[in-house]
Amino acid sequence: MSANSILLDFSLDPARIIDEVSRKDIVRVCKEGLEKYLAGLKISYDMLTTDGYLCILSETGTGTIVTIRFFEQGLITINVEYYRKDGDEAKISFEQIRELENNLVQKLKFNHGQSLPPLQRGPLTRYFPTADERVIEYDIDRVLFDKRSEFQKIQIVHSRSLGNMLVLDELQNIAEADLIYTETLMCRGKEDYAGKEICILGGGDGALLYELLKEGPKMVVMLEIDEIVMQACNKYMNTICGDVLEKRTDDNYEIIVGDCMVYLRKYIKEGRKFDYVFGDLTDIPISDTPTGEIWDFIRTILESSFQVLKPDGKFMTHGNGVSCPESLRMYEDQLAKLTPKVTYTKSSAFVPSFMEEWVFYQVQREVANATESV
Amino acid sequence: MSANSILLDFSLDPARIIDEVSRKDIVRVCKEGLEKYLAGLKISYDMLTTDGYLCILSETGTGTIVTIRFFEQGLITINVEYYRKDGDEAKISFEQIRELENNLVQKLKFNHGQSLPPLQRGPLTRYFPTADERVIEYDIDRVLFDKRSEFQKIQIVHSRSLGNMLVLDELQNIAEADLIYTETLMCRGKEDYAGKEICILGGGDGALLYELLKEGPKMVVMLEIDEIVMQACNKYMNTICGDVLEKRTDDNYEIIVGDCMVYLRKYIKEGRKFDYVFGDLTDIPISDTPTGEIWDFIRTILESSFQVLKPDGKFMTHGNGVSCPESLRMYEDQLAKLTPKVTYTKSSAFVPSFMEEWVFYQVQREVANATESV
Repeated sequence: MSANSILLDFSLDPARIIDEVSRKDIVRVCKEGLEKYLAGLKISYDMLTTDGYLCILSETGTGTIVTIRFFEQGLITINVEYYRKDGDEAKISFEQIRELENNLVQKLKFNHGQSLPPLQRGPLTRYFPTADERVIEYDIDRVLFDKRSEFQKIQIVHSRSLGNMLVLDELQNIAEADLIYTETLMCRGKEDYAGKEICILGGGDGALLYELLKEGPKMVVMLEIDEIVMQACNKYMNTICGDVLEKRTDDNYEIIVGDCMVYLRKYIKEGRKFDYVFGDLTDIPISDTPTGEIWDFIRTILESSFQVLKPDGKFMTHGNGVSCPESLRMYEDQLAKLTPKVTYTKSSAFVPSFMEEWVFYQVQREVANATESV
Repeated sequence: MSANSILLDFSLDPARIIDEVSRKDIVRVCKEGLEKYLAGLKISYDMLTTDGYLCILSETGTGTIVTIRFFEQGLITINVEYYRKDGDEAKISFEQIRELENNLVQKLKFNHGQSLPPLQRGPLTRYFPTADERVIEYDIDRVLFDKRSEFQKIQIVHSRSLGNMLVLDELQNIAEADLIYTETLMCRGKEDYAGKEICILGGGDGALLYELLKEGPKMVVMLEIDEIVMQACNKYMNTICGDVLEKRTDDNYEIIVGDCMVYLRKYIKEGRKFDYVFGDLTDIPISDTPTGEIWDFIRTILESSFQVLKPDGKFMTHGNGVSCPESLRMYEDQLAKLTPKVTYTKSSAFVPSFMEEWVFYQVQREVANATESV
């Protein structure tokens, strides 16, 4: 139950002149091509635009509307849009769209054609962006949980290929298929967590806590602000979080519902120290504590974390997609400005639900060099 | 240099009645919302459609066109389209699109909003489908090779995250980031290729041959029909094929340019036998030998392969995406119909350039059971 938008576009030789006669001819051929799949089309309206021409065609007896647009820069776009009820066959399959594209390229001597699978517009969000804002269509077939907490919009949706997926403020967060995310964040196999004291900032989906507990730590404290996220994940994301969100506490871990900044300050005051601090917060930070703009917040988190880390302790966090080298560089710039001076290593992995390679950071105090320590 | 299409949609409570007054009110609020990002908009045209209403708004002094459409089924779509030159800033960023979406949902009490990152329509193909025809936008920034052979359209494009990628007839085929594809196809670590005789049907990108040669086979024969594919991959896909396409032959391998069906028949006649036959052909088969429709071709390939396989030989091939259980089942139906009777195992892996989990088959003659062999 959604409107389908079928988008095609055609690039022309920039030297090619499209006068009124050739434009009419192109519209006629496009119309004929479309009429192979649609009942008779008639032109309902057309207009000259500042940079070209636009015409609207309507299919006889249905709500199908075709928009053909000419851009003087040598581009023609065609949009076909109609309402498709559940169970109704597509008016034009993707195979037919490609066939139409190829036919028009040949008949009208276009340089290049492009067509997209029909886009589905309706009550189920299927499109999410990559870090660099490319569109990815997910095979989401139902919404399991949908609630707005005081902090964010929380959804658990089901993807046929990724399993259940947590979506926060309309951004994909973690899916059942994403064990690699947690393993790369924690550098499984490279770090030794046995007997260690660990603090997780955020981590409301429970996956990091669940995986860390398998490594025999002494104590893990998790500071998550959003109770509703934990309830949702406990109900629908058990494959990644086990029963840690259900139990909330045990001999070797404790989940505290609250603002991580408040607790970090408390630990600093008490002199409490950890071997590892994990920054597992959302990309766009949520905190009741005002901290200015995003990079200030990130630096504040880092500096506070180093105040609760033992001298050889590590701060572990997710960075960004490899498709966003600028964001990664900006994060590294923040690390360079930090007090105390730090060094860092990176790990990365292709995260299924992000549909891209993701970079993670491991940050440590810089060891004073030999000359200085003499 | 492309036209940008910004798509938003809003779902309404199905019980909500949209009369002319409320429709005008919704259009006005949408127009005001859009005018935060666009110069003044004026309605150029509007019409009642069979299933709703459509109106076209033009931005003052530019070619930006906004189409607002009402569907009686309780859906409103907004398309914003304009030409964006290289280097020009977006008129509305994705962040602003989301902001607009959220504002309209709140102000107009919509049930649900959805918006996509701006789609780019122009001379560079950035959108490819998954096996189940979902749209994926790739971070393609240039075309390195573009030629039509007598068999297919061959392109090598560059993706920022996947490296160079072979595209055949507008379908993504293999990228530099796809070693896992080849390793899962050949079941690296599970199969022992040392001293074995192997035949590859297709495999023009050279990746499978290159990886097999690392395992010390006695002889690999590769039968590829399209010379141009090999030239393109040899030039632009060296990281996955090494120098095997450049050299073409050595002590332990030979590449034959020709129709694999012709050579399979020749080998059958000669009584030549292999330990492994790889079906590494494109999904839509290319052969000069007419074999009827697609499943007939696939069965013919399988049956001919078993005629050149030793009794314990294996046929190894790629299947389809896990998102297409129907296609996988149809392939398995073909296997069930095969003479000789066969059994099969499956392997699977997430293939970066396919953006999904892919299934591979390992097919063997069924071993006669104990009672029969007595």
